[in-house]
Amino acid sequence: MSFNKDTVNAPIRDRMEALVRRKQKEITAGLETLEPTARFRADEWSRGEGQGGGISCVIENGETFEKGGVNISVVYGKLPPAAVNRMRADHKNLKTLDDGFVPFYACGLSMVIHPHNPHAPTTHLNYRYFETWNPDGTPQTWWFGGGADLTPSYLYEEDAKLFHQEHKNALDKHDPAFYPKFKKWCDEYFLIKHRNETRGIGGIFFDDLDDRSPDELLKVVEDCFDAFLPSYVPTIAKRKDTPFTPEEKNWQQLRRGRYVEFNLVLDRGTQFGLQTPGSRVESILMSLPATASWAYDHHPEEGSREDALLKVLKNPIEWV
Amino acid sequence: MSFNKDTVNAPIRDRMEALVRRKQKEITAGLETLEPTARFRADEWSRGEGQGGGISCVIENGETFEKGGVNISVVYGKLPPAAVNRMRADHKNLKTLDDGFVPFYACGLSMVIHPHNPHAPTTHLNYRYFETWNPDGTPQTWWFGGGADLTPSYLYEEDAKLFHQEHKNALDKHDPAFYPKFKKWCDEYFLIKHRNETRGIGGIFFDDLDDRSPDELLKVVEDCFDAFLPSYVPTIAKRKDTPFTPEEKNWQQLRRGRYVEFNLVLDRGTQFGLQTPGSRVESILMSLPATASWAYDHHPEEGSREDALLKVLKNPIEWV
Repeated sequence: MSFNKDTVNAPIRDRMEALVRRKQKEITAGLETLEPTARFRADEWSRGEGQGGGISCVIENGETFEKGGVNISVVYGKLPPAAVNRMRADHKNLKTLDDGFVPFYACGLSMVIHPHNPHAPTTHLNYRYFETWNPDGTPQTWWFGGGADLTPSYLYEEDAKLFHQEHKNALDKHDPAFYPKFKKWCDEYFLIKHRNETRGIGGIFFDDLDDRSPDELLKVVEDCFDAFLPSYVPTIAKRKDTPFTPEEKNWQQLRRGRYVEFNLVLDRGTQFGLQTPGSRVESILMSLPATASWAYDHHPEEGSREDALLKVLKNPIEWV
Repeated sequence: MSFNKDTVNAPIRDRMEALVRRKQKEITAGLETLEPTARFRADEWSRGEGQGGGISCVIENGETFEKGGVNISVVYGKLPPAAVNRMRADHKNLKTLDDGFVPFYACGLSMVIHPHNPHAPTTHLNYRYFETWNPDGTPQTWWFGGGADLTPSYLYEEDAKLFHQEHKNALDKHDPAFYPKFKKWCDEYFLIKHRNETRGIGGIFFDDLDDRSPDELLKVVEDCFDAFLPSYVPTIAKRKDTPFTPEEKNWQQLRRGRYVEFNLVLDRGTQFGLQTPGSRVESILMSLPATASWAYDHHPEEGSREDALLKVLKNPIEWV
């Protein structure tokens, strides 16, 4: 008989692991309903003996999705001192032990989906649980982090409202203060500082969350997970076959260039991953689009739809 | 009568400025010989009153060159403490003043050229002069830095040898120890650490150079500048019309993705620029290609030409 990790009495880390495994299956199946034939292929990887691993589910060259990944990872071992120092900036409770190494456990699901059609928005989602403990095995600290956000090349208000409303509904079940706080956090986190514009039209983002019981926070994460498919699938169903011009495709490519800029220059998770020895680069950089473009000093025409998007990225809107 | 900055009695900074202005004209003219009609367009910019500026010369959608820029900048003012701290890691002589700000002058030419044809290599060149001084106007420190390197998608040994030989000849005029040292420095600097492969097949790179008279080092830089056109133009003339397959174009796009990864994740100049308030983002990110691509876990077929390039990028070769 195999041990069922998804029971209320199991440790939180096992219940989070069971949750991300279940959600990987649900989300890939939900997205596949938008694809006539292409399917996610699962790629299992290991960090080596006693250090965990993950499963990357990747779709490429579908009819709807140009590139996308829904990855889970369950990794553990000892964080080297340099990684501990980088993390401490964002995680107030992280302690260093005498030798500088910190035993840790991290588990999460991370997803980025880039559709072909320039009218169909890119999306990103990530929920993770982190735990450290002392050499004697006693718990030291733990937290949840994550969020989900939407990155359109062309703005459709109803798509933005749906995405935000579904996530607000999920959070409101727990605390009406969550959505406004996490919405603002998202706008701030996904700011492309050197461009003074946000990567997309936001969503929710939180990190270092440990001020309620782990049971309650796990339920918050589960409800946020549940909000994703209803917040995104109807939009893609509506936009995936919208006729588009070469100019619209080109604008999408330029916006993807900005996506790459954010992920490679500013995203803390990407930087932490690339700097951590033994991390799986292919799973980290799965977030990058199949195609992207850069033009020198490009500015859309005043009053155009492209310009309308940029204005929103420079001044985030309250969608709900 | 206008002051002639390019005389032996003028301060080094003025002579370097005159050099980069002259070289911008020579290099753009030299590259334009490879283009039937497209021309570089000059875009002058200013950092604001008393802080300098530059001229970006950009070519886009030519027949030979998909995108390229030959930029000069002459900037000065006060480096904020955060920038001083970041620079000190690489520049041993940089001192902080009482208020943390350091008066500085920086002048350089920076170039990246991306041809269309996957058989025609991308190239990058940058030479710069940096100076700081004390509040009383006395000089504090100065140095030269720079180099030039080649990034092919398909390896032609003769192209690599020509590029290295021309730069070696320039350096050998001054010191036979320069080329081996700067060639190795280049391979080390342009390592994409998270991929364990270099960006291209190298060239020369040096930084923080101040161990000879500024006059002599200015001449080293001038000779390196002079080496560029003969090291690159014959190669592009030979490769720009080579027939290619869609698969070869695709491989070039993937290699450009790696180029973007290096520039955004690892290049110190790019990071320093993006983090420095008031810097001109469009001129810094001019280095990015018009188009780039990413595929999940891509590996070329063993024994293919693509695989042959990768092997060299993982084990740099002595070309001359």
